[in-house]
Amino acid sequence: MGKLLVVGSVALDTVKTPFGEAEEVLGGSATFFATSASYFTSVDLIAVVGQDFPEKHLAFLKSRGIDLSGLERRSGETFRWKGEYTHQLNEAHTLDTRLNVFESFKPKIPPHYQSPEMLFLGNIDPELQWDVLQQVRRPKLVACDTMNFWIERKREALWRVLKHVDVLIINDGEARALGQNPNLTHVAKQVLAQGPKHLIVKRGEYGVLMFNQAHTFGAPAFPLEEVRDPTGAGDTFAGGFMGYLAATGNLSDTAFRQATVFGSVMASFTVESFSLDRLRALDYKEIETRFREFKRLTQFEDLA
Amino acid sequence: MGKLLVVGSVALDTVKTPFGEAEEVLGGSATFFATSASYFTSVDLIAVVGQDFPEKHLAFLKSRGIDLSGLERRSGETFRWKGEYTHQLNEAHTLDTRLNVFESFKPKIPPHYQSPEMLFLGNIDPELQWDVLQQVRRPKLVACDTMNFWIERKREALWRVLKHVDVLIINDGEARALGQNPNLTHVAKQVLAQGPKHLIVKRGEYGVLMFNQAHTFGAPAFPLEEVRDPTGAGDTFAGGFMGYLAATGNLSDTAFRQATVFGSVMASFTVESFSLDRLRALDYKEIETRFREFKRLTQFEDLA
Repeated sequence: MGKLLVVGSVALDTVKTPFGEAEEVLGGSATFFATSASYFTSVDLIAVVGQDFPEKHLAFLKSRGIDLSGLERRSGETFRWKGEYTHQLNEAHTLDTRLNVFESFKPKIPPHYQSPEMLFLGNIDPELQWDVLQQVRRPKLVACDTMNFWIERKREALWRVLKHVDVLIINDGEARALGQNPNLTHVAKQVLAQGPKHLIVKRGEYGVLMFNQAHTFGAPAFPLEEVRDPTGAGDTFAGGFMGYLAATGNLSDTAFRQATVFGSVMASFTVESFSLDRLRALDYKEIETRFREFKRLTQFEDLA
Repeated sequence: MGKLLVVGSVALDTVKTPFGEAEEVLGGSATFFATSASYFTSVDLIAVVGQDFPEKHLAFLKSRGIDLSGLERRSGETFRWKGEYTHQLNEAHTLDTRLNVFESFKPKIPPHYQSPEMLFLGNIDPELQWDVLQQVRRPKLVACDTMNFWIERKREALWRVLKHVDVLIINDGEARALGQNPNLTHVAKQVLAQGPKHLIVKRGEYGVLMFNQAHTFGAPAFPLEEVRDPTGAGDTFAGGFMGYLAATGNLSDTAFRQATVFGSVMASFTVESFSLDRLRALDYKEIETRFREFKRLTQFEDLA
């Protein structure tokens, strides 16, 4: 049993950015999350793929120690997403979404997955997120992502889930839509009053803010010379964040802040290449080095 | 003689934001800069106003200890700017600009201003910035602001100035326009190769990045419950930044980082009210308190 359970999408992405393009490459929220978290802890994955899903991607995920007994393979085609980014890399323009086997997905949690220490509800229909919550023993920590599509169309179902979530991890546009307020401090108050104990707002190249009742933590994004493809950065962040917390078992304010930085570090690698290409080629020393660079980037007292 | 000399605009602003409006209120780059810096050090100001400029504003600036012997009063009307902000507070929409007496402004530096320790060239025509540089003994530190209007129309004159500037302080849109490159890391390399030893990129609610040859420093903006009017935030930042450096006389990497945080702290006050209303009502203890809060906001190790 892994320490960390993720439910989300495993997809084939076709992506175009000003720096290149990639066709039918490995993608999906659960994929980025699990690969990122696998650098810190053991991960169980719940998702669905079609008959057309390439064996080599399964082999890669297994090579990262990810338990795929919850990855259902169904007749039909794998979920596909096609998107484009302009130089304004913070915003993806979706050209095509084909849910395919995802359309009738009902997450089924294998018995040995049912007592996860921590759970990440990736960005899927809040009703499916709810189903997953019902099938597991209450984990020590539940985090959740969502998107404007669900915020607009399934607000009630989403809030039902959020009442049982410890950490809500969304981007700034989603936060403003959820809180129906442009001021993130006000949104945080609202969210924290209704369930989640922590709100993490991802702001792409502008970094991240984490709000809880007692404190706010802010970190810039790592300034990069090469940003080729932002796809998956948010899920990679969440994977680094939860992977670090699951590995240490520490849920102190300091641990949450450090987890946020590890999440940012992992995301900074993902965007350097298309798909999971940079994450594949990573070793833990590079993560530690960039964590130290991150400290150097942000500290303003007692510099060595 | 003040330690810090600023040349820029003194203006009457009419501003509308989603949180209110203000008509014919005190504004201008030199005004915000000098008021902010006056909390740290003594400031000499070079600018021009018309016959219509209210005495009470002069009295306020004098009450902050700002030397106004370089503030020319001419026949004609004071420079006026009219602008509006939507909920997207990072971007001002200029409705009207009347240069008035500013149109024929030729900065003349009084003799007792001619050996400043530090000089800030506020956002004016680069040819006027050049004139000012010619009239002073080389200060220990020269910083400079500009805007897209000059980047597009007076690129050569601007680069002539920048070759003699130590710190270029601009916003991210301006940085991208100046470097003709969307990646700020690439822009920084270009800028640092051609004169300035430090590039500070202001990103409004997203904070600030400071690049030099050896390091990059990044800080989030202080998350605020009340953001009423962003006008003057950038000049307030520059005033806090240079005021702190002038006060300490220290130009180490650590001092630059701390100055960046003091600049951010000062800007965080300015945006809480219209015009200089919040800056007027400030005392130094509030600045120190927010500096400590800023540390708490950004640190992720050894939390007390």
